[in-house]
Amino acid sequence: MTPEQLRLYLVTDRPLSLGRGLEWIVEEAVKGGATIVQLREKSLDTREFIELGLSLKRTLAPYGVPLIINDRVDVALAVDADGVHIGQSDMPYDIARRLLGPDKIIGLSVENLEEVEEANSLDVDYIAVSPVFGTPTKTDTAPPFGLDGLRKAASMTRHPVVAIGGMNRTTAAGAMACGIDGIAVVSAICGAPEPQEAARELRSLL
Amino acid sequence: MTPEQLRLYLVTDRPLSLGRGLEWIVEEAVKGGATIVQLREKSLDTREFIELGLSLKRTLAPYGVPLIINDRVDVALAVDADGVHIGQSDMPYDIARRLLGPDKIIGLSVENLEEVEEANSLDVDYIAVSPVFGTPTKTDTAPPFGLDGLRKAASMTRHPVVAIGGMNRTTAAGAMACGIDGIAVVSAICGAPEPQEAARELRSLL
Repeated sequence: MTPEQLRLYLVTDRPLSLGRGLEWIVEEAVKGGATIVQLREKSLDTREFIELGLSLKRTLAPYGVPLIINDRVDVALAVDADGVHIGQSDMPYDIARRLLGPDKIIGLSVENLEEVEEANSLDVDYIAVSPVFGTPTKTDTAPPFGLDGLRKAASMTRHPVVAIGGMNRTTAAGAMACGIDGIAVVSAICGAPEPQEAARELRSLL
Repeated sequence: MTPEQLRLYLVTDRPLSLGRGLEWIVEEAVKGGATIVQLREKSLDTREFIELGLSLKRTLAPYGVPLIINDRVDVALAVDADGVHIGQSDMPYDIARRLLGPDKIIGLSVENLEEVEEANSLDVDYIAVSPVFGTPTKTDTAPPFGLDGLRKAASMTRHPVVAIGGMNRTTAAGAMACGIDGIAVVSAICGAPEPQEAARELRSLL
């Protein structure tokens, strides 16, 4: 993975997608400029999760855009996804790396500067600084970094950085100016009336 | 795995365990005669699930009793469990076998005679006929097999059979008489005031 592939990182959210199929949202987002897609599911049965993963993989293949699975290494292995994104309460990095092998992408959420520091001892492919701002998408998040915290995190880490939490067309440029590689969005694309246009506008700001 | 190892199959349930540690419940059950243990968790974070799996693996190791993980192949791989138990909405059998390799135990829940028949085309290590009777432990189950259905399932399948759903000291002997290899219990041990005694009494009936 190149740091450029983190530029506009779409994290899926079915409830926010207003009943529109995730395959459609994802393809529109990619046409608009999304560079990587994370499938994040917290309520699907494993079988449905795998089926959706396979479907998104087919959607993304023609575009060469990587598919990342949130948390579930079994689903990532089952669909041969490009990697996983793990949080601090998910599978420990070392085990995930052992199960996925050296070539898969593993991203890690970091919720404070201590975790940014700790991640420097791991061979992760990128870190997601989370959350930069408060956000309605997730209610169980740590206190926000703010732009100062994001700048600090970017200066401390040896990894590519994506910012998540409150990223949208108003906040994107300011976040990028902190020295990061990309922004991750959920509602700014999944909840947009026209996801392709939303992605295109965001991409133009990065 | 030998069919004898299915004789008294404990499926864990933390909410039913009345605040007592699962390690304690499991060790008491094994001392009383449980022959295999399935860790079933639907609400834990992946990291906690793995930690609990590792802990139960340490608990069971001295007794040579296999540890099976419900649904989550990633957790099974992470803790190097003896196998997984999958339901019809979990990972498809073929994928689970590919990820786990030929030596791990894979058990499959079957909820009607069609699924018993279908399982004959799979290389599963056992089937769990579910539910034999109605049960308060799971509320999302299919219509019960009853003893006649259980007998039919046992005669149709080429696999070892364990019966689950309403299995207790009153129903155990009748189920065994249907030509099965063992019974699986949840509340009859996890919810018992003395899990070791409960397991011992059940075992004596099998």
